[in-house]
Amino acid sequence: MIISNVNKERLWQSHVELAKIGATPGGGVGRIALTDLDRDGRNLFISWCEEAGLAVRVDKMGNIFARREGSDPKRAPVMTGSHLDTQPLGGWFDGAYGVLAGLEVIRTLNDTSCSTLAPIDIVVWTDEEGVRFAGGCMGVGVFAGELGLEEALACRDKNGLSIKDELKKIGFDGEEPCGGYPVAAYFEAHIEQGPILEKKDTVIGVVKGAQGQRCFKVTVSGEEGHAGTLPMDQRKDAFQAAARMSVAIDEAVKEFSPKSVVTVGAFDVSPNSRNTIPGQVIFSIDSRSPDDETLSKIKTAMLNLCQDIADKRDVMLVFEEVSYSAPVLFNSNCISAIRTAAQDLNLSNLEIFSGAGHDACHVSRVAPTGMIFVPCERGISHNEKESASPEHLAQGCEVLLSVIKKFAC
Amino acid sequence: MIISNVNKERLWQSHVELAKIGATPGGGVGRIALTDLDRDGRNLFISWCEEAGLAVRVDKMGNIFARREGSDPKRAPVMTGSHLDTQPLGGWFDGAYGVLAGLEVIRTLNDTSCSTLAPIDIVVWTDEEGVRFAGGCMGVGVFAGELGLEEALACRDKNGLSIKDELKKIGFDGEEPCGGYPVAAYFEAHIEQGPILEKKDTVIGVVKGAQGQRCFKVTVSGEEGHAGTLPMDQRKDAFQAAARMSVAIDEAVKEFSPKSVVTVGAFDVSPNSRNTIPGQVIFSIDSRSPDDETLSKIKTAMLNLCQDIADKRDVMLVFEEVSYSAPVLFNSNCISAIRTAAQDLNLSNLEIFSGAGHDACHVSRVAPTGMIFVPCERGISHNEKESASPEHLAQGCEVLLSVIKKFAC
Repeated sequence: MIISNVNKERLWQSHVELAKIGATPGGGVGRIALTDLDRDGRNLFISWCEEAGLAVRVDKMGNIFARREGSDPKRAPVMTGSHLDTQPLGGWFDGAYGVLAGLEVIRTLNDTSCSTLAPIDIVVWTDEEGVRFAGGCMGVGVFAGELGLEEALACRDKNGLSIKDELKKIGFDGEEPCGGYPVAAYFEAHIEQGPILEKKDTVIGVVKGAQGQRCFKVTVSGEEGHAGTLPMDQRKDAFQAAARMSVAIDEAVKEFSPKSVVTVGAFDVSPNSRNTIPGQVIFSIDSRSPDDETLSKIKTAMLNLCQDIADKRDVMLVFEEVSYSAPVLFNSNCISAIRTAAQDLNLSNLEIFSGAGHDACHVSRVAPTGMIFVPCERGISHNEKESASPEHLAQGCEVLLSVIKKFAC
Repeated sequence: MIISNVNKERLWQSHVELAKIGATPGGGVGRIALTDLDRDGRNLFISWCEEAGLAVRVDKMGNIFARREGSDPKRAPVMTGSHLDTQPLGGWFDGAYGVLAGLEVIRTLNDTSCSTLAPIDIVVWTDEEGVRFAGGCMGVGVFAGELGLEEALACRDKNGLSIKDELKKIGFDGEEPCGGYPVAAYFEAHIEQGPILEKKDTVIGVVKGAQGQRCFKVTVSGEEGHAGTLPMDQRKDAFQAAARMSVAIDEAVKEFSPKSVVTVGAFDVSPNSRNTIPGQVIFSIDSRSPDDETLSKIKTAMLNLCQDIADKRDVMLVFEEVSYSAPVLFNSNCISAIRTAAQDLNLSNLEIFSGAGHDACHVSRVAPTGMIFVPCERGISHNEKESASPEHLAQGCEVLLSVIKKFAC
């Protein structure tokens, strides 16, 4: 029998305290990267780390590393963490949970006077959400060598303020090099941000990796016309063509489900006037799959059916791929350690792919990486209503403690 | 054999001269109601009327009446005309043709020293297009008793300027009462603004009336979700439901074609973000038919199929009618006079319903009314590219001359 070690109340209380910084009227949190609120959240975390006896370093991207030393100076650190920035109307748990679970692991190790061979770093990655500057995962992107330091620091928000200047303003323009050293393993605990665990009444998601993603911009051009005077059979209605493409895409993806998803999320009609037959539609397709080959097949299928509809309806089609990220597979040792820990703790678990991107996806390029998911209510995230149970958060933290001990001892 | 009387070159040259006022870089015209350009266009027209010996009056709505007296003082006037205001990027002919054709009729009567029993008024109606103030047809709306004078004068544009003040500013705040007296008949010549005549290689559209119109606002509410994490079978995608409704509406209208048309012109997706499953869509339906009963049947059919799709896809539907105008049927004597005139002139002709609204639709409530359509290139209107041939314009004017003589002599 396994004794539960982490302090559920303390972990929950940390979330309550942190959520006061940037609390929104709707009960959520808005702590956008490199704002004064982000600074306050970081400083609260650092004060807790110092209380826990950790040595805090900040690198040139503002990533925070709070270290509990190990007994073997030759061992590379085991890392855990996530991010403290949020969406403008975000929730309590996205990012915060991974950081606070790391802190709770350290506090528990301290409580039980458990020493480890390897040092343990709790990491706070800078600007995961990508609300304000570029596409997100800026801090970890530089750490993992995907993005140049100078390039990242030069990114500006819509007011022209750069990451470099804003880091300095909030006092997180650190001196440490960003990455470039060995990491024994990286584990990140996170709410699922999807409904699968809850639906299957399962506590622990053993994350195998993250879906690959291909995004497209589809432009359909027909001919504007007067809604009253142009007979139906003489129209080149871009909207009706684009609507048929969207429906066909939605039907076609069933062939690739349940693990693949396709979404038409943005759909802009021109001139978007009640009494004018639309002359142009530009819409987005976001396709994701854990399997790269499937992702390619989906692309081909979508392009073919859009072209067929365009031909039939005599409209012009421009089908452009605007982004591609390959599926990420986490380290098999990390995955199996998480699975084993969940089993040993008698926690229901299942293998899952992350539909969203995470800091861990980037770390996985430079270190053995694993992720632990816990359920969140109705899968809702990036939303003030984001919710997770203290019980599930503690159980995920228990798994994290277990795998960190395994890799650090 | 009928001798052609109107002067094709003179009619064309009038269009050329008028189109210089408010000429746009793209070759069109922008003469928005009650602007200085509208004033200049009105004044050019008045100068031509005075040269033709007409007495010009302006009513309290700024409608202009240029009268050629008849020989019988007891006869009510025969009226013809249209409007001189345009869309912001409008063309040479929409409105202008009806006014200038009326002028050419008068000039031709003068040339041939032809007197009439009834007086003939060329009318310029104020603000037909509805670009700047309310929904358009303001001047004729008051004339026809559909709209109160004070209510109309109080309408303001987005800068808070009222019709009353703007009429005064351009010097068209007339003293004459607006309507309330008998009109023997009203004829309006207009470009078709649709492609039917051109496609059928026909010169004269004998307009039977105007389509009725029902417009709807459809709100589809599902649930927002993360495009990466929510499996396809757990989505309540408002966009996919709304797209299916739009396609089904488009398919269903075939049952009611060719004379009925349905258009989804405005389609707003929320939050309209690539990586979020849409939670809400609001779209417009504009349905038109010359037959009121058909219009009701289309409404029922659309509501039922939208509700079916909403039920199947577990989304909420709100289906609201936002406007209704009954079909307009023009006066049978006026219609048959136009048909007979076209036949006597050996001009190809067909009966047609107007898909767009016109000043004539409103006049028809208070006077026997008819409309004469001529082809415009590819049916394009409300566009700088609006085009019509001098030949067709003169042929339509010939028909107008013929019916005016018939009703005024």
